[in-house]
Amino acid sequence: MTPARGDHDARRSEVSAAVWRVLADRGFGGLTLRAVAAELNASTGLLTHYFPNKRALLAYALDLLDRHTVDRPRPAAERTSPADGGRALLRATLLDILPLTPEGVAGNRIWVGSWDAALTDPELAADHAARYRRARERLTELVAQAREQGDLTGEASVAEVAAGAQSFVLGLVVQALFAPAEFPPERQVELLDRYLDGL
Amino acid sequence: MTPARGDHDARRSEVSAAVWRVLADRGFGGLTLRAVAAELNASTGLLTHYFPNKRALLAYALDLLDRHTVDRPRPAAERTSPADGGRALLRATLLDILPLTPEGVAGNRIWVGSWDAALTDPELAADHAARYRRARERLTELVAQAREQGDLTGEASVAEVAAGAQSFVLGLVVQALFAPAEFPPERQVELLDRYLDGL
Repeated sequence: MTPARGDHDARRSEVSAAVWRVLADRGFGGLTLRAVAAELNASTGLLTHYFPNKRALLAYALDLLDRHTVDRPRPAAERTSPADGGRALLRATLLDILPLTPEGVAGNRIWVGSWDAALTDPELAADHAARYRRARERLTELVAQAREQGDLTGEASVAEVAAGAQSFVLGLVVQALFAPAEFPPERQVELLDRYLDGL
Repeated sequence: MTPARGDHDARRSEVSAAVWRVLADRGFGGLTLRAVAAELNASTGLLTHYFPNKRALLAYALDLLDRHTVDRPRPAAERTSPADGGRALLRATLLDILPLTPEGVAGNRIWVGSWDAALTDPELAADHAARYRRARERLTELVAQAREQGDLTGEASVAEVAAGAQSFVLGLVVQALFAPAEFPPERQVELLDRYLDGL
């Protein structure tokens, strides 16, 4: 790697960190080239080298959010072993989506905030839709596994169970973000367990 | 009512319509004093008479959204009579939240878009949380009614069932907005019915 390449990567990483801080502090509604430039102590002109316009910044932020999500800690899944069975792994995967920790709250806050921005643009909306589709596909595999192991019964197709579970968890995220005192972690877990019992 | 008062009310109503058009076209992220002024063919200066700052505009828009929601058509509830029983009324109430019609898509698009803006400010978040709490209370009454009529069984408290149902529906709204082709109205209704069957 040439030094120039290294500099470039370091700069990219600084830009990513600045975009992330703006998202965490002000949400997608506060994400502007000017706000990111201020975080970097840089000029808006320098930023246009990375992001020619607001839309490019938005697309970058949505992708950054996705990468943060892929790399996030998954404490419940880490505590679960294949020996616990398919339903336990499904439950752990759903638990790791919920805002049960300060980091979970912060990450979900940014996800929920991304929906307004993503829905304003057909291409960004399609990218976000693909992210949710992939998540549903992962859930579908877990549901199928739980069914095979006899850990989960029911007549609905595995894809329908996965789509239902994703709906339940996404909506619970929204409610818990708005009313953390009414939806403390224990209650979120109870609600999820009751949902899984109903499947 | 004096003419001056009538003028004032007419102007308020024009401002409300302009705010609504901006929300529908560009979401909360595109809601600025300048955008609303342009819709009204007015100066930003005139707008500051109504909204001294961005936050005041945001609070007004969230309240306007709430009023639109209260006044929205409820076709499923209108087709349901008390004789159909408590569970049918609960189902109709939940159906009327889903994006099953173009108007339902537009209204939900604005609701989902409001979350980023509402979560950036503790007071706006508290107002939004109170709106969801009221909706949960209405659902709780319907669940209690269905239980009394023996239309719905289960061991969970009525408040837990209502919170679960609200979660499920909110998350289904989000998924259907992003992937309308994968979540056509019929599939949304099927998913809701399966959820209700699991209660």
